[in-house]
Amino acid sequence: MTTISDVPVPTSSPDLPPVERHAALPAGFKAGGLAAGIKASGRPDLAVIVTTDGPAAAAAVFTPNTFAAAPVRLSRAHLAATSGDARGGFGWAEAIISTSGSANAATGPAGDADQLEIAGLLAGATGATLERTLHLSTGIIGTRLPLERVAAGLDALVPILAAGDDALEAVAGALCTTDSVVKTATTTVALPTAGGGSVEVTVSGIAKGVGMIHPQMATMLSVLLTDATAAPETLWRLLRPAAARTWNQLSIDGDTSTNDTVFLLASGAAGGAAVEPGTAAAQALGAAIEAVARDLARQQAADGEGASTLITTVVTGARDDAEARAVARSVVSSSLVKAAAHGRDPNWGRIAGAAGNARLATTAVLEAAGIEPAEAATRAGTPVALDPERLRIWVVGHLVFDGSRGGPVAFDRTAARAAMNAPEVVFALDLGLGTGTGEGFGCDLTEAYVIENSEYTT
Amino acid sequence: MTTISDVPVPTSSPDLPPVERHAALPAGFKAGGLAAGIKASGRPDLAVIVTTDGPAAAAAVFTPNTFAAAPVRLSRAHLAATSGDARGGFGWAEAIISTSGSANAATGPAGDADQLEIAGLLAGATGATLERTLHLSTGIIGTRLPLERVAAGLDALVPILAAGDDALEAVAGALCTTDSVVKTATTTVALPTAGGGSVEVTVSGIAKGVGMIHPQMATMLSVLLTDATAAPETLWRLLRPAAARTWNQLSIDGDTSTNDTVFLLASGAAGGAAVEPGTAAAQALGAAIEAVARDLARQQAADGEGASTLITTVVTGARDDAEARAVARSVVSSSLVKAAAHGRDPNWGRIAGAAGNARLATTAVLEAAGIEPAEAATRAGTPVALDPERLRIWVVGHLVFDGSRGGPVAFDRTAARAAMNAPEVVFALDLGLGTGTGEGFGCDLTEAYVIENSEYTT
Repeated sequence: MTTISDVPVPTSSPDLPPVERHAALPAGFKAGGLAAGIKASGRPDLAVIVTTDGPAAAAAVFTPNTFAAAPVRLSRAHLAATSGDARGGFGWAEAIISTSGSANAATGPAGDADQLEIAGLLAGATGATLERTLHLSTGIIGTRLPLERVAAGLDALVPILAAGDDALEAVAGALCTTDSVVKTATTTVALPTAGGGSVEVTVSGIAKGVGMIHPQMATMLSVLLTDATAAPETLWRLLRPAAARTWNQLSIDGDTSTNDTVFLLASGAAGGAAVEPGTAAAQALGAAIEAVARDLARQQAADGEGASTLITTVVTGARDDAEARAVARSVVSSSLVKAAAHGRDPNWGRIAGAAGNARLATTAVLEAAGIEPAEAATRAGTPVALDPERLRIWVVGHLVFDGSRGGPVAFDRTAARAAMNAPEVVFALDLGLGTGTGEGFGCDLTEAYVIENSEYTT
Repeated sequence: MTTISDVPVPTSSPDLPPVERHAALPAGFKAGGLAAGIKASGRPDLAVIVTTDGPAAAAAVFTPNTFAAAPVRLSRAHLAATSGDARGGFGWAEAIISTSGSANAATGPAGDADQLEIAGLLAGATGATLERTLHLSTGIIGTRLPLERVAAGLDALVPILAAGDDALEAVAGALCTTDSVVKTATTTVALPTAGGGSVEVTVSGIAKGVGMIHPQMATMLSVLLTDATAAPETLWRLLRPAAARTWNQLSIDGDTSTNDTVFLLASGAAGGAAVEPGTAAAQALGAAIEAVARDLARQQAADGEGASTLITTVVTGARDDAEARAVARSVVSSSLVKAAAHGRDPNWGRIAGAAGNARLATTAVLEAAGIEPAEAATRAGTPVALDPERLRIWVVGHLVFDGSRGGPVAFDRTAARAAMNAPEVVFALDLGLGTGTGEGFGCDLTEAYVIENSEYTT
């Protein structure tokens, strides 16, 4: 019998800087949030972030959903207008507005007109150029935003925008819908400079998201702010692979939202020359962005609608990282794996089944992760290479399947069940085929998820 | 305001012969099932079907899961051996054995050896040639089959195999795991003959399946039997597109099983010349196969684990049928649509969101549906063409979204909620782009699904 001590359990330790779970507003921004009455509950639902020293470099990733919401389409158009980047991936921004309670998705031309009117109100209230406004919205799909409440809310909010961490916490709170906790993460790193010195910069992130979460290219709503100095396109080239390794590995319920958006704004207030692509500074800034993104994704998974357990899947030994991520994502997306986790059931057969269904991500996700376009197009959606005779599976540290020794392994089921009764459950798979690694983040499927989502609009 | 009477609701009425929900064993077969003690519950778990007049032409479709179970791999090898078809899609068969309670998946080489030993036992007991045996198994992944119980069960069962409908009902019962009802469907059609006459043939089907159901190429377990005369490859060319339009449009929980298998056996006992591809007889036989497959898929969706409502999605106006099916499948696969259906909540925004996420099926599924291989490879996984300004959505007959008139439509929410409180809920979408049509079948997501699946192995 193969015992638990025979083979080291794969663990996840990306080479990323540590993060703290609070919202540190970087220099160069002011922010605030309040309850404008968009939500019937009276909870905070309107937030604004503005730059204090001119336009910030901005990058974004958005939902691939064909019915992208009005705020997504307007933000993309604005970024394109300020940079000339036809994809709308990066540009310049002076103000961000977030509304919560109504997604302004599938609202037709009237919804687009509403969002444009909000852009005008925001520009008027903050002094920003109209095309340097960016937009986020979340909530029920198919309902219009109450413009007069947004206008009154902006009139009340803009004069009290403030620097300081409380201001960014207020924004994080106003992003939320059914979130049970606000999600924040901050890291500080030293970026090497050409002269041998360094510039200390902060990267802070806030995010919301508890349902309709299965990002394919972007994610739910998140805003990352930094005081680093970098060109818009540089930011975009750092943000996309970070999102591919973190948010794109998050699944709560298999549904990709119409409103997924991540914005990354760099004020440059920390000083220093602009971070150039390919340098040590770019690498350090990219790691900081990924560290914040990864921690926010984990917070989102842990707070999935109805969830009681964060599920982390660690995959090693794949032919490459893209295949490792595909397996990790397939496992955390499986309804049966998620239900078994809820029951503290070490039902590893479902993990094997989900791994066997793994297919590589879409062309856009593979490209974002750094794979050449032609290769990405060829490999997108193809099955991942797996060999049952090389596969190993661990459930909360217990080796349960070892293909090289005939497959199923006797293990201490009682101990495994006990270890699964925890806020985080880790499944590990070593494919035994190469050096590719990846992680996936999800949550258990509970009765509470069903109850919460069987009554939402009415 | 656009009212419900303005636009005709798309309906689903495939041009297929009517089916009856009973198991009529066609001429040329004997069958039976019993409790062999594989399941701890003591319910029926072993079934055998044999041919009475020599080998039957056989065709099959199987799971694309990389960890295909031992019975899948052995069946594929046997079909290849009897026909020379390297894909293992068709061949000749004299006996089918089904075991329930253990899937014999992820059991390593020992599981393969077990299945081969079962083949030998089956051949010995029935007089079938070893390579003309086909194998089905379902149940827990990762557990071995109890060979001595299977052997004893075969000894008891083979002498009492019988003709008659009760015998096929017994097989259907022994396929089941957590099924709450047996699934059977039968149709009788007249196949035109060259001389201007016709031959009446029966196509009967049985199936099981309530969880881990999200077929990508095949399905769960099903056996179709007919007394028609046709070559194995002809059967295969009729079975694949029928499966693509029916079982591949079924999703219960988004997980594709390791054991999915459909067998179609033709005894030829009805007489007449072999059905040749491309003839009116082939079209009639294909329609009969599809009618049985479609009805079984609907029974499976309605009996999804924990389900209280069958969800049918009808899509019209797509650029082609493949795109219509992709949209229908995306809608019935959405956790949020499923939860809303459970709550009788006409939350059409989730339907729009799911439609916006629709992507074309895999290369294999597209090829099975009749798309040329090169085109299938190019289009697999790509987003479906959708135009929000042309889209219309109906919930249980109520027009709720009309892109041509600005989007959201006021509707009688109370009446819609009341109409959703039914054994079947129909969502309809007209994409307004072409003549492509398709259907999808699913079920609501309930607390009972979570409870049932959070405790299964232990």
